[in-house]
Amino acid sequence: MLYLIGAGLWDEGDIPLKGIEAAKKCQKVYIERYTSLWNGNLGKIGIKAEDFKRCDMEENVQNVIKEAKEMDVAILVPGDALIATTHSTVILEAKKAGVKFEIIHASSIFSAIGETGLQIYKFGKTATIPYAETEAPYKILEQNLTIDAHTLFLLDITPDRLMTCSEGLKKLLEMEAKFGKRLLSKDTKVVVFCRAGSPEKVLKYDKISNLLDLDCTLCTIIIPGPLHFAEKEYLESL
Amino acid sequence: MLYLIGAGLWDEGDIPLKGIEAAKKCQKVYIERYTSLWNGNLGKIGIKAEDFKRCDMEENVQNVIKEAKEMDVAILVPGDALIATTHSTVILEAKKAGVKFEIIHASSIFSAIGETGLQIYKFGKTATIPYAETEAPYKILEQNLTIDAHTLFLLDITPDRLMTCSEGLKKLLEMEAKFGKRLLSKDTKVVVFCRAGSPEKVLKYDKISNLLDLDCTLCTIIIPGPLHFAEKEYLESL
Repeated sequence: MLYLIGAGLWDEGDIPLKGIEAAKKCQKVYIERYTSLWNGNLGKIGIKAEDFKRCDMEENVQNVIKEAKEMDVAILVPGDALIATTHSTVILEAKKAGVKFEIIHASSIFSAIGETGLQIYKFGKTATIPYAETEAPYKILEQNLTIDAHTLFLLDITPDRLMTCSEGLKKLLEMEAKFGKRLLSKDTKVVVFCRAGSPEKVLKYDKISNLLDLDCTLCTIIIPGPLHFAEKEYLESL
Repeated sequence: MLYLIGAGLWDEGDIPLKGIEAAKKCQKVYIERYTSLWNGNLGKIGIKAEDFKRCDMEENVQNVIKEAKEMDVAILVPGDALIATTHSTVILEAKKAGVKFEIIHASSIFSAIGETGLQIYKFGKTATIPYAETEAPYKILEQNLTIDAHTLFLLDITPDRLMTCSEGLKKLLEMEAKFGKRLLSKDTKVVVFCRAGSPEKVLKYDKISNLLDLDCTLCTIIIPGPLHFAEKEYLESL
């Protein structure tokens, strides 16, 4: 049996009760920290887990599946269980091998953005701002603005570097300078939401020019579409 | 102090550990079951809660805020904490009154849709299909299709009626017949995902014509945009 368990936004307190119970009865527990950072201490809640590197996820899925044929295995994943494509692959392979599986969902940035006061129904496609040069996030912003949707930007995470809010905003301004469709400027008011679900969270609504020094990591940037008055009132209370 | 706590997708097992701990130390705990159904039994985990009707949420927010000035009060909300606008209002009123608050996030359909195999980054705006006649969900589908995004449809919940999957699909076909933009037909392949997070969940990928008899409730319907091959492979394994 294989359990794919969302570990939630921040730490061990974000794991749902049924996820803790499932992990505790497994003979083997893995934690996958590659696709996203997670600050929990599983020892605190009596769970012993091995770290799971991305190379393992991609190259050794078959080994996990083999183990799951003989015993109960859990994979804990930061945020919700099936946000990253890698994790869908695990489930697909389990199906092919006839291994039973259960998915346990948890909190995720994709619903936590409700905390910004922006209506979750009005978010369009999500973009990631990578270190590499690319037009992709700018194109997604353009698409979303044509349908009056909000755009959520996630920031790049590499094994040795976390993109800061400041870097992400500068990347957006660079894209504007390069592709020039007047989608944003230094005066555009954006939302930044960093370390969601943690006691050190940061939530701000301001002009890009006033946020360019914000060097916190684990951030998301939101460029809102047209605002409903209730959204506006909430944002202005931040 | 006011705690707004996500109770997660289905039952008490979906509440994150820190949500349970916070609710247990509160003198008063409310559960809000109007905006969405929730099947938990809080007694099982030692929490005593009062039901909270919508009229209370809108008319009596001031009373809750008053209580929260004098004691620790928790409001448990199905799904994640801040999906419904009503709950943002509670936070806004708490701020105005100078009442401290904490938001605890939980699992939600907005990230659980990752379980369908569709990439969460590619979802566009979300629509609700109401019992009332309206063009709104059809317009949102049109917008999302212009940017190649997937569309998540939530189904109407009224105090005395839950829209079934079959009713929702028929409503979509009726809108197509009425507004005629060729966005869908009986042959359109859609995803239905019902009772997410529960042992009785239903997850299907099929032509609308083959799903018209599906009378389960607590459903979502997804009309996918263009599919990536990994999405296709996953959907076809359902």
